[in-house]
Amino acid sequence: MASEFELISRHFSRATPSAILGPGDDCALVAPAPGMELALTTDMLVEGTHFLPDTDPGQLGWKTLAVNLSDLAAMGATPRWVLLAGALPNADEAWIAAFADGFFRCAKRYGAEVIGGDTTRGPRNLCVTAIGELPAGSALRRDGARLDDDIWVSGQPGLAALGLAHLQGKTTLPEALARRCVMALQRPLPRIELGLRLRGIATSAIDVSDGLLADLGHILERSGLAADLFEGQFPLIPPGSVPRLAREAQLGGGDDYELCFTTPIAARQQVVMLAAELDLPLWRIGYTVSAATESGRPIADIRLIDADGQPLPIPKKGFDHFD
Amino acid sequence: MASEFELISRHFSRATPSAILGPGDDCALVAPAPGMELALTTDMLVEGTHFLPDTDPGQLGWKTLAVNLSDLAAMGATPRWVLLAGALPNADEAWIAAFADGFFRCAKRYGAEVIGGDTTRGPRNLCVTAIGELPAGSALRRDGARLDDDIWVSGQPGLAALGLAHLQGKTTLPEALARRCVMALQRPLPRIELGLRLRGIATSAIDVSDGLLADLGHILERSGLAADLFEGQFPLIPPGSVPRLAREAQLGGGDDYELCFTTPIAARQQVVMLAAELDLPLWRIGYTVSAATESGRPIADIRLIDADGQPLPIPKKGFDHFD
Repeated sequence: MASEFELISRHFSRATPSAILGPGDDCALVAPAPGMELALTTDMLVEGTHFLPDTDPGQLGWKTLAVNLSDLAAMGATPRWVLLAGALPNADEAWIAAFADGFFRCAKRYGAEVIGGDTTRGPRNLCVTAIGELPAGSALRRDGARLDDDIWVSGQPGLAALGLAHLQGKTTLPEALARRCVMALQRPLPRIELGLRLRGIATSAIDVSDGLLADLGHILERSGLAADLFEGQFPLIPPGSVPRLAREAQLGGGDDYELCFTTPIAARQQVVMLAAELDLPLWRIGYTVSAATESGRPIADIRLIDADGQPLPIPKKGFDHFD
Repeated sequence: MASEFELISRHFSRATPSAILGPGDDCALVAPAPGMELALTTDMLVEGTHFLPDTDPGQLGWKTLAVNLSDLAAMGATPRWVLLAGALPNADEAWIAAFADGFFRCAKRYGAEVIGGDTTRGPRNLCVTAIGELPAGSALRRDGARLDDDIWVSGQPGLAALGLAHLQGKTTLPEALARRCVMALQRPLPRIELGLRLRGIATSAIDVSDGLLADLGHILERSGLAADLFEGQFPLIPPGSVPRLAREAQLGGGDDYELCFTTPIAARQQVVMLAAELDLPLWRIGYTVSAATESGRPIADIRLIDADGQPLPIPKKGFDHFD
């Protein structure tokens, strides 16, 4: 059987022209460009918690990197460098080769280079650290939303949760929709271009990994605000799905990696034009409101309002691993 | 039960004055100093592979960070920032608090700040990414050793392997030695100061995590050299240990996190003075030799020579997780 070192160098050592020193030493070496800040994020994916044992390794490789790049997107950072640590139950070369193929396809698509890593034996676990660059002071933080900002979400949040429900037999989707939802679940697209274009426009941003309401809640918490959302302005429910389930998935389903962000009202037309340019729907779902004592609204309070102006019940909030 | 978010913010959010933005957003933000390079490394520690389920969580916290800082030491980098991802089987707050205490004690000792992380449910697994800074071009790489360089190792390699053998009942050490060896195993000291002082002196360096011969082999492999080592110049065998076992631990035992490095002969006196200054033994155990075709020595070939000039058998080489 090939040794750990051989397997790694066979499948994970590719050219790293943007690094001073790539894999194979105690550390990788990089030199950030002058005047740039670095955005750093780490995410761990665990078999049985984040993916099923029979998940296609190529899709898992893509997703393992994509969920980390999504955090860079949410800061408005350009992906640069990646480190990958993995525990594997055995040295299954076919699995490793397929995983590496998916991982590097995602890296190439978004311009990231794999500069280091670690491999060990253990229950399957994949941990990526992703590093992006952005001009000093330009990051899209969670704490920047202001009163009366528009609240937006990209794409079609909820598809991944519908896809999971379909795979688990909890709902049955028509074939074409099922394919689309399972694809959203297994091969998410980090919204890198959107994040970059929102620099200088958005006052705050987050990627929707825990669910739209939960993640918007993080922005509101950090910014000291509350929000009103309008059901009539939400993305349309996909035809063929069960409307109640689809709405719950839209509000509470994680794993879509769309961006939720806020902008000043004055930027509204810019966002609409950006959606057209990127060919990506951007839905203006509501606005921030005061959470001051006199408003009677606690910080991070979210009201969902129907077409008649009546409040709707808020479904169970996002995904908390230790609840 | 406290939620994941609460547990994390309670135990892992500390002030991060060296970062622009610390934990709690999609990414952390840092600004490297102008003219500096960054050294990046990631290491994953898995329960059952790297530590036993009943390992003291405080010591494990220390070691989880220390093994990563050791990689920075081996490059000659100053520790700056750390990200910690962990999978835990449950939200055991006492365990988390003790682990965090050990982890932050190590971070404080070596000047690293924890700027981000991820927590999830799963078989216990801890993955750190450590980032250090160093002046451009000053890194101690594995590929820099030159012909006729002295080969050195710091401290007392092999103690950690003896400590593990003692804990496993494979050998019985006298009480004081057992304490010292178990301490070396459970609370390793990354040789940060040594690494920093070796910049401009050493031609190559590596930390001894897989075993002295295996790790020296990585330097030789990358530098295209072979080596002669002299048993009489090795660190003394600790009194009270079984000499054969202690020698095997010294040559093949991992997990000590001493530094092995090479220097030009002209720097010999500087290294001797450095040892005195740091109060850390530095053993000149041999020198590099040619691995050219005419020498008959393959690249990375290591000869171990006894006091009579006779070659000694080389014990089994280091630790390869997938062998």
